Amino acid sequence: MTKRQVDVFELSAGYVSRLRKAIAKEDKEFILRTLKGVKAADVSEVLEELDGEECRYILQLLDVEVGAQVIRDIDEDERGDFLELFSPEELSPFIDELDSDDAVDILQQLGVRAREQVISLLKEDEQAAYVMDLLRYGEDCAGGLMAKELIKVNLNWTVVRSIEEIRRQAEDVDKVYTLYVVDDYDKLLGRVSLKRIILASDQTLISEIYEKDILSVETFMDQEEVASIMQKYDLEVIPVVNVRGMLAGRITVDDIIDVITEKAEEDRQIMAGISEDVQEDDSVWVLSRARLPWLMIGMIGGVIAANFMGLFDGDISQIPALATFVPLITATGGNVGLQSSSLVLQSLANPSVIEDSLWKRLFKTLTVAILNGSVLAGFVFLFNWLSAGGDPQGMKIAVTVSTALFSVVMLASTMGTVTPIVMDRLKINPALASGPFITIVNDLLGLGVYFGVAHLVFY
Amino acid sequence: MTKRQVDVFELSAGYVSRLRKAIAKEDKEFILRTLKGVKAADVSEVLEELDGEECRYILQLLDVEVGAQVIRDIDEDERGDFLELFSPEELSPFIDELDSDDAVDILQQLGVRAREQVISLLKEDEQAAYVMDLLRYGEDCAGGLMAKELIKVNLNWTVVRSIEEIRRQAEDVDKVYTLYVVDDYDKLLGRVSLKRIILASDQTLISEIYEKDILSVETFMDQEEVASIMQKYDLEVIPVVNVRGMLAGRITVDDIIDVITEKAEEDRQIMAGISEDVQEDDSVWVLSRARLPWLMIGMIGGVIAANFMGLFDGDISQIPALATFVPLITATGGNVGLQSSSLVLQSLANPSVIEDSLWKRLFKTLTVAILNGSVLAGFVFLFNWLSAGGDPQGMKIAVTVSTALFSVVMLASTMGTVTPIVMDRLKINPALASGPFITIVNDLLGLGVYFGVAHLVFY
Repeated sequence: MTKRQVDVFELSAGYVSRLRKAIAKEDKEFILRTLKGVKAADVSEVLEELDGEECRYILQLLDVEVGAQVIRDIDEDERGDFLELFSPEELSPFIDELDSDDAVDILQQLGVRAREQVISLLKEDEQAAYVMDLLRYGEDCAGGLMAKELIKVNLNWTVVRSIEEIRRQAEDVDKVYTLYVVDDYDKLLGRVSLKRIILASDQTLISEIYEKDILSVETFMDQEEVASIMQKYDLEVIPVVNVRGMLAGRITVDDIIDVITEKAEEDRQIMAGISEDVQEDDSVWVLSRARLPWLMIGMIGGVIAANFMGLFDGDISQIPALATFVPLITATGGNVGLQSSSLVLQSLANPSVIEDSLWKRLFKTLTVAILNGSVLAGFVFLFNWLSAGGDPQGMKIAVTVSTALFSVVMLASTMGTVTPIVMDRLKINPALASGPFITIVNDLLGLGVYFGVAHLVFY
Repeated sequence: MTKRQVDVFELSAGYVSRLRKAIAKEDKEFILRTLKGVKAADVSEVLEELDGEECRYILQLLDVEVGAQVIRDIDEDERGDFLELFSPEELSPFIDELDSDDAVDILQQLGVRAREQVISLLKEDEQAAYVMDLLRYGEDCAGGLMAKELIKVNLNWTVVRSIEEIRRQAEDVDKVYTLYVVDDYDKLLGRVSLKRIILASDQTLISEIYEKDILSVETFMDQEEVASIMQKYDLEVIPVVNVRGMLAGRITVDDIIDVITEKAEEDRQIMAGISEDVQEDDSVWVLSRARLPWLMIGMIGGVIAANFMGLFDGDISQIPALATFVPLITATGGNVGLQSSSLVLQSLANPSVIEDSLWKRLFKTLTVAILNGSVLAGFVFLFNWLSAGGDPQGMKIAVTVSTALFSVVMLASTMGTVTPIVMDRLKINPALASGPFITIVNDLLGLGVYFGVAHLVFY
């Protein structure tokens, strides 16, 4: 995107500090001159560099449409605190302006009292009715994602009557992808594209030109399932129906992209052992708070491992070389476990309609583990054997290490494959099976196997 | 999505085996009866369960529009081999049928000779011109993502002339989101929505009703940048212009969703140390081949660690308790490093326009590390101190372990933060900084620090 094409707002650190000075001096002229006409998404980026009160000041100056979009764009985790700076009287114009799905997202972050007050102050009865309807849906289902703004036409209408309806709703429904065709009871029957409307003659009946083949989702469907349907069939929008088949709202693709990106980020954080939704530019305190829990769990695991190894300190004392291979064992277990769980997570995210049975997948996992384990154990054995140069203790170490390594690969593969599957069936986020938790368990199992084998070989 | 709404094709293992028998017996009647009228995305799911020759047989039987979509849906990595089963004469009807962006994706997977033959056999000159134009763009830029099918209207046309254009292109341009407004030299000037066209009167000029404010991207822009622009501004479609500002094509949101999902999967695989794009249901051989490289590197790292620790085997022999804390040290280093690199990766993926300087970020990282390191080292010290019960050797171990733990947290944080940033600046995928590579380096550094501190404390 270049400046030739469009007036792109150029954001820089210099501008931000001038803006802050302008806010402090209440220099409205500067603010309006530089920000008026700038796209909401760009204004949002500027506001990310300011604190809450500064943002509030700016939003009160700009057009209410821009302000509404900016509030909508603010990251959900930070928005709760930000909204508390506004009184219900100040918030309701923004809520009037937004599409019902975005309005509801914001209302859900208010305390119940503030929410009721904002709703009571809404200028448009229709918007009030919309948000009260949508508020009853949980956040993570189709009903929680959908907006009520859409254009529906009756099966028996003519094209010219439908165009009247488009005109009537032109202001409220910003992006019209398709018209939904319903019967007298609002039951969804099909769709008709604007292209068809344009090309048809005025008196044609909708019933003659509409497309009966229409995909829809029900209000209670999980949001990630909605996302996968829209992705699979390449849809920009999908209608939502209630249990009686009546048209309840529509979900647009921009919300789905958000669902997909949030899920990917959430999973990545879980796999890294970060327990809250934080970013690098959060405060030191917030970052520590999000990172410590898993680190503490890892530390407890390490202390347990130390106690466990302590049982073998006689062996370690006599054969210190035994101890030197512990990092190899635990690191290999960790890497194998991570690979296995990552593959399973990928499968769970993109389920093929026909899944191999659990036994079949386990069997394949073990086969791959046998292959990989043999290669790794083989190389390590070769290395140790050559270093030992015939020394019997060295040979015993070679056998111990390679046997344990092979077993650890088998164990870690199995754990790494089975744990996410089991968690998924128990409705726990399977990404928890990756990362620090699995590595601790693998470490302890690996050490157990290693010293167990050592005992067998040496005694 | 329920069967009440639409005739959803129900896929089951039983059906697949009956289908395979039908193919073997060339029972065309069964195949057409069960698959005719089924959506292409669902047919693709069926075909995923069949082998190449079986797929080819079915595609030859179904409508060419369905066949074209199915070929388009096949995973890119598997499609190359699949396309080799078709002769140029068999392929060109599908290429005729597809939108130019999808047609080019497929043509790029053919050998040059086959590609030229297919193009020469295309029935439509326009399609041939389109694909030859698009073939010169690299795959990962806007030019490689775009399609040439779009509807453009001249600034000086009337609404009724524009509707004529829509009618003329109705078959070729399946989804019309918006009309692009150009001048006599094809330079992009703006856009006008179908909604506006519908509501305007016939003789209104486009110049009176079009929207000048239009976002566009240039043909050479990186695909991930295009994706982030479309996501930021909530666009379903974006026009692509060449260096002279002339309209060259358009990119639709379904392609962007694919870019986003592929990137997330690619990163996840890299972080797990899987070196190829594999899935759980690939063959044992393919899976092993993708997993072994990193496991071998990890193994080499473990052997290096063993040799390194071997330098201290005198210490270990005398004070075996020292060795028992090695898993704690390496595990903590691993967890901390993973958290740090994960946060940086997230930042790199969603760059704020104004980035804190590198020094500032490093400073914050170290502050968080000091905080976390102190907490962890503190707890471990407490635990060891209590277990030691006054024993001087136990006290020394407590001091050694906690000092080393604290240092390891600092080191791993720094490594985990700096490495992805450095790699990103060197244009290497920073996700490589996570996963097995970083854990090996952290392990070695951690062991070095640990035994170094032990020497200081004990001697």
